[in-house]
Amino acid sequence: MSLKPARYLFLTLLFLSLPGQAQIDREDPAYQWDLQGLFVDIDAWDQERQRVLGEIDKIARFRGTLDESSAALHEALRFISDTYQEALEVYVYASLQQDEDLRNTAAQERNQLAEAMFARFSQATAWMDPELIAAGEERIRDFIAENNDLAPFRHQLDNTLRQAEHTLGAEAEQALSYFSQPFDAPSAIYSIIANSDIPFPEITTPAGDVVRVDSQGYGMLRSHPERAFRKQAFEAFWNTWLDYRNSVGMVLNSHIQTQVALASARNFDSVLERELFEDKLPEAVYRTLVSEVNKALPTLHRYFRLRARMLGLEQMHYYDIYPPLVELDAEFDIESSKRITLDAMDMLGDDWVNRQREAIEERWMHVFPQQGKRSGAYMQGSAYAVHPFVLLNHNDDFDSLSTFAHEWGHAMHTLYARQTQPFETAGYATFIAEIPSTSLELILQQYMAGRAQSVDEKLFYLGYSLENMRGTFFRQTMFAEFELALYESVERGDALS
Amino acid sequence: MSLKPARYLFLTLLFLSLPGQAQIDREDPAYQWDLQGLFVDIDAWDQERQRVLGEIDKIARFRGTLDESSAALHEALRFISDTYQEALEVYVYASLQQDEDLRNTAAQERNQLAEAMFARFSQATAWMDPELIAAGEERIRDFIAENNDLAPFRHQLDNTLRQAEHTLGAEAEQALSYFSQPFDAPSAIYSIIANSDIPFPEITTPAGDVVRVDSQGYGMLRSHPERAFRKQAFEAFWNTWLDYRNSVGMVLNSHIQTQVALASARNFDSVLERELFEDKLPEAVYRTLVSEVNKALPTLHRYFRLRARMLGLEQMHYYDIYPPLVELDAEFDIESSKRITLDAMDMLGDDWVNRQREAIEERWMHVFPQQGKRSGAYMQGSAYAVHPFVLLNHNDDFDSLSTFAHEWGHAMHTLYARQTQPFETAGYATFIAEIPSTSLELILQQYMAGRAQSVDEKLFYLGYSLENMRGTFFRQTMFAEFELALYESVERGDALS
Repeated sequence: MSLKPARYLFLTLLFLSLPGQAQIDREDPAYQWDLQGLFVDIDAWDQERQRVLGEIDKIARFRGTLDESSAALHEALRFISDTYQEALEVYVYASLQQDEDLRNTAAQERNQLAEAMFARFSQATAWMDPELIAAGEERIRDFIAENNDLAPFRHQLDNTLRQAEHTLGAEAEQALSYFSQPFDAPSAIYSIIANSDIPFPEITTPAGDVVRVDSQGYGMLRSHPERAFRKQAFEAFWNTWLDYRNSVGMVLNSHIQTQVALASARNFDSVLERELFEDKLPEAVYRTLVSEVNKALPTLHRYFRLRARMLGLEQMHYYDIYPPLVELDAEFDIESSKRITLDAMDMLGDDWVNRQREAIEERWMHVFPQQGKRSGAYMQGSAYAVHPFVLLNHNDDFDSLSTFAHEWGHAMHTLYARQTQPFETAGYATFIAEIPSTSLELILQQYMAGRAQSVDEKLFYLGYSLENMRGTFFRQTMFAEFELALYESVERGDALS
Repeated sequence: MSLKPARYLFLTLLFLSLPGQAQIDREDPAYQWDLQGLFVDIDAWDQERQRVLGEIDKIARFRGTLDESSAALHEALRFISDTYQEALEVYVYASLQQDEDLRNTAAQERNQLAEAMFARFSQATAWMDPELIAAGEERIRDFIAENNDLAPFRHQLDNTLRQAEHTLGAEAEQALSYFSQPFDAPSAIYSIIANSDIPFPEITTPAGDVVRVDSQGYGMLRSHPERAFRKQAFEAFWNTWLDYRNSVGMVLNSHIQTQVALASARNFDSVLERELFEDKLPEAVYRTLVSEVNKALPTLHRYFRLRARMLGLEQMHYYDIYPPLVELDAEFDIESSKRITLDAMDMLGDDWVNRQREAIEERWMHVFPQQGKRSGAYMQGSAYAVHPFVLLNHNDDFDSLSTFAHEWGHAMHTLYARQTQPFETAGYATFIAEIPSTSLELILQQYMAGRAQSVDEKLFYLGYSLENMRGTFFRQTMFAEFELALYESVERGDALS
């Protein structure tokens, strides 16, 4: 990639911009997603929800017909798939609206209604897998071979047959299907405790601003250059969590026990086996990742020593992990983030860049933080016939730019999948979902480091890359290792406390 | 009942006693339960737990044998019942120890291990009911008729046969059996949030004491004679709950959804039907209670008007419900509570009184509040071969005396059941469990009112009786009505918020 003068100029100007100078109007509707592509209003949403519930009730009429003929099988799968797609749009609308302001109880209720609709969908389709398995692999394969209409459903049918050993009979599957909401209860409860009810304290920054140290505030303050202050922010945040360790511990315990029970109920030896089986992953993938991360720990520790030296610290503490190795006085407002990302993605070719350029100007994103909004960032790609939606909490630092690139990695993945695949096969496994998103982050880091105008600027981006590797490669794997230890402890019959 | 001078004297003396004069040493081990009758120490407990787990694993060998002969059926039921009884003792020990100090994480862990043991028991016996039902009612009845050893199991077998329609096949029952802990998760989470993590504030009483307004403090302060202060206590308590309404609401929602799912999974039309079916109660019992309470609301409102007049209030508020109608300057320390209760129970006959006199001097009770102890009061009667245990939080007011009588109603019920019934039939349904306990309260109230030395004293006890009727008859039924409304809302597919 060659350094293009125009872009260089742009970056230079950008780095000279000072806080507060941005021309962005954060109230501009252009920075909020437009949900009217889903439903014109809440009434229309509720009408569709009622209609979909009616469709779900009709699914029962296909029971007992799946092995009659390939045409009968296709008719059932087509109807159920269409209903599922419609249900997803109802869900996406309620879920996005809820995340705009988690304090809005009417929106919470609508989200619950959407979840109840999915619970009913699970109950209405619980007989299907047992019936397909009872029909026999040979018969299903013959149907697929003779009827091209079944092509979009081949993957789903393969999966059902593959899972025969872990699928119970119709009565047991029906019984389990009633519990889809209770099984998710620990994560729903955790989300409310963490996002709504824990009274995180306020602290005063060295600049005199009063900031609440909730997860958003913590995310901002933990990288503060003044060590004593970020230590204070760490303590304010984690000591508040400490006050709720019993509740949150019990919620985690309930989640672990639910997962262990689900694995046992479906004849898996362990939660690990169940999790890997769903994506058809060999256990070696997981074990190799964990053992490679453990082997590479000396590299991680070398990074920490480097970090301590560059920050001038005798002894690294947890609260010294987040500040950048060198400071960068630059802002990346949302418009700069768009321009830089597009420019960096040049290496992915014109088709990508043109498509992304068009997409990021649509009202698919909810860009800025606001009171009650869900923290963090995500891409919601389940409304197949509409388009992906992106939630950000953009605050003009490089991390916001990097998150922008990351979420757009997901969104572009979704757009390309939609172009190539019908609804039935446009989804992707969690295991590969993070590849496009982290790829875009890496491309962006390489691009920024390559264009750095000073040693310090270059060090900033290289340091960011190192920190990214710690967070994504080391830390995430350590989470997975810790999670496995929890599951194995409960599987052995031990107690968690 | 005649007024006996000796008792009259005793009461007079008692009423002259002043706060602080009591001779009771609250640290005296005599006021703490002795768990050594269960296990000499934690090591012995853990050894027994391991042994019981081994016994539970042996239950599998009875699978497929239940319909072989009445002797085979008896052998299986006897082994399983004995194992269950042993498991209960392991559980009671861990549970009582945990309740002494809910902050003790080692005790929490042991309680979890005991619960995990029960989960394993459920899993190990999930095949039984389907197998008995498959054997057929006629065959089981023949076995009962021909083999007297089965007599203790007749009730259990009747119940199993009665539940045939709501019992699934072995595979489905096995699948559901893995979830006994997850299904209880909402109540476990609620208990931790309420008892351990919500930071209830402290307030200063008019007497200058600083009291934490947690559920124990609230229970004490809500009846304070100074209206402005008890209003302050109410607000301190309920406004703190208000801060956690989203979390606690989500926990309640999860509980409701779990119960609705359990009813659906077992072919009940509603949670109400399932709850009543378990105790073989006709729905009319529930409906009649609710409609009678609603019909009697004018009486409740008349009581509130009387209360307002006696307290000299223009307008009753929620915080005016608890103060006594007249003040009574009397203390009922634990020793007086014992004496008064025994004296009041004279009408129940010598056998009762002698038995209770002996029992209350044993170390079966944990009497006094201490930091971290579970609030409220209960009787734990599951250690059949040992004796009942009673947890109190005695604080020397009449309510403490009344609670003492109430819990001993449960304990005496348990003692008489143990004397008359083998382990298998010594249990009793929740529906009748409160009859002995509330009977003892009523007897006590009648006794106290009958011995009152002044109009005010008599009014105190009559007022207490009225308040008791509000709490037990009106309020509990209103809880039941509210709970039903929650279930019916979710059963209709509505959302709770």
